[in-house]
Amino acid sequence: MKIVLDAMGSDNYPVPDVAGAVLAAREMGGDDQVIVVGDEERVRAELQKYDTAGLPLSVVHSSQVIEMTDKPAQAVKSRPDSSMVVGMDLVKSGQADAFVSAGNTGGVLATALFRLGRIRGIKRPGLTVLFPLPNGPVVLLDVGANADCKPEYLYQFGLMGSAYAERVMGRQRPKVATLSNGEEEGKGNTLVKEAFGLLQASPLNFIGNVEPKELVAGEADVVVTDGFTGNVFVKTAEAVSKMLTGMIGDQIKANPVTTLGGLLAKPAFGRVKRQMDPHEVGGAVLLGVEGVVIVGHGRSNDVAVKNAIRQACAAVQGDLLGAIRQGLADYPSTP
Amino acid sequence: MKIVLDAMGSDNYPVPDVAGAVLAAREMGGDDQVIVVGDEERVRAELQKYDTAGLPLSVVHSSQVIEMTDKPAQAVKSRPDSSMVVGMDLVKSGQADAFVSAGNTGGVLATALFRLGRIRGIKRPGLTVLFPLPNGPVVLLDVGANADCKPEYLYQFGLMGSAYAERVMGRQRPKVATLSNGEEEGKGNTLVKEAFGLLQASPLNFIGNVEPKELVAGEADVVVTDGFTGNVFVKTAEAVSKMLTGMIGDQIKANPVTTLGGLLAKPAFGRVKRQMDPHEVGGAVLLGVEGVVIVGHGRSNDVAVKNAIRQACAAVQGDLLGAIRQGLADYPSTP
Repeated sequence: MKIVLDAMGSDNYPVPDVAGAVLAAREMGGDDQVIVVGDEERVRAELQKYDTAGLPLSVVHSSQVIEMTDKPAQAVKSRPDSSMVVGMDLVKSGQADAFVSAGNTGGVLATALFRLGRIRGIKRPGLTVLFPLPNGPVVLLDVGANADCKPEYLYQFGLMGSAYAERVMGRQRPKVATLSNGEEEGKGNTLVKEAFGLLQASPLNFIGNVEPKELVAGEADVVVTDGFTGNVFVKTAEAVSKMLTGMIGDQIKANPVTTLGGLLAKPAFGRVKRQMDPHEVGGAVLLGVEGVVIVGHGRSNDVAVKNAIRQACAAVQGDLLGAIRQGLADYPSTP
Repeated sequence: MKIVLDAMGSDNYPVPDVAGAVLAAREMGGDDQVIVVGDEERVRAELQKYDTAGLPLSVVHSSQVIEMTDKPAQAVKSRPDSSMVVGMDLVKSGQADAFVSAGNTGGVLATALFRLGRIRGIKRPGLTVLFPLPNGPVVLLDVGANADCKPEYLYQFGLMGSAYAERVMGRQRPKVATLSNGEEEGKGNTLVKEAFGLLQASPLNFIGNVEPKELVAGEADVVVTDGFTGNVFVKTAEAVSKMLTGMIGDQIKANPVTTLGGLLAKPAFGRVKRQMDPHEVGGAVLLGVEGVVIVGHGRSNDVAVKNAIRQACAAVQGDLLGAIRQGLADYPSTP
């Protein structure tokens, strides 16, 4: 299979992007290949830093870039030779199987919608994160593609998230839940209450509502929510983690004994940090568009880029799109 | 002033409740008084554990209890002699100035709505927490009274939260913000976008959207949101904090050196825990009903109950209700 890597994506493009492509290519076998799309001169200059002889790497030139600060829809339309558009078109034309970028999330979303379009029957694509937990990540969507949702969207998020958990992560009959303000049926806002009914009537393995506590305890494989709440959830988790570790650090440094203790305990903090490191789990997945599309964090390093490429390979190998289409055919919840 | 304390509120009622009333009464001066409402026999048995001679404490008997597991609306109607209903009626009749309970939040909410009613002009009361932050709490509402909200409610939450921050916490011209998925104007779901306009046009000191990151950094004094998102926010913060401290603890115990480090650093962890302890800041406030109503956590200890009573005193002293009424009169956002 062929994976497109947007070389002009990350905050420090093309350095970690190209380095990640090299790492991924080194692990590839068979006919697999990474197609690096970006400014050819800059990409080749980066590639020269590595021994790439015999590696399944090719370069496709593009003269423009969609930057982190760009307004997505506008940028996609005005920059047809950007690495995002050129790369996405390789997927559209069948020359590649998946698209990976550590760039502007809104840009990737807009490019995917404009160039690939939605899977027939899917109302709205869902931006999906693998939220890291001590015993393996939970699939959470939508985290930002749709600030306002209808119950039907949440059902389809469940279908797509379930397909991802099964085909890409190897979870058996994934447990799907709605994020809510209480566990019992009947809790939630109007959206959640209505989505609850749709999900319960569906063939999915729907386990009902989860509160953040249960989500974090790993009680579900897939948690669905509207893109506003999902975004607030993810950002709250990040903000609170940072605040708490910052406060612990400050208090440890407040006196010599606790400072010594902190130094001795440092490896433990490091292990927790790694366990919760989003770089380890790969990127966010845009579920519901006509292609495998992965968006890494702007701060991605080479390992994060490599992991995102591997994640794309796993999605192609597991026939993620086929599974979503099949799910829609088996249970067309709306005529 | 006279503060009603529901003796049958906390998970371990009436033990910490009565103990908290005694602590509060010891700090009171002038004509101030705590009216302890509950099963008289049990309350008096608790009171006998302390030297209450001369303390401004009185007991009002009630024969029924609204338990944590009760369905609120039903319980309020079927138990007219419950401590919540009897206590709330003391406020309604003017025999007391405020009501404090560490009981069933939904029960307190329903009792307040049925017995006190809303302040004239207020569309929906907002359940308000003082979310603990390193540099002092932020006022956050709604965290659960209204899962579905209209923009007008969010504006009124801003008005009420601002009155609370100013009159009870002494913040000057409190900064009010909407919780959103992005800082810029135009970010948010439809509700947030419409509330943004209302708040911006109001006399409040509206600073725009905050993401969880900015909320946690203390950039606003008051943050308004719908009761679903607010509830998810608070529960996410709690769940992630617990998960993280649990993971750190596990990793520290994983080897002898880090275990020793953890022991030495323990006081630092204790200080962080106290800084973030909701018991220290008092209870949640039900803003928008015709009385000062404070709901403490079910796990409240005596100090938490005392702090909630002090918080009620401060709200009465600051004429919180008067400030809300004045705000409505000055800027009747809807005719």
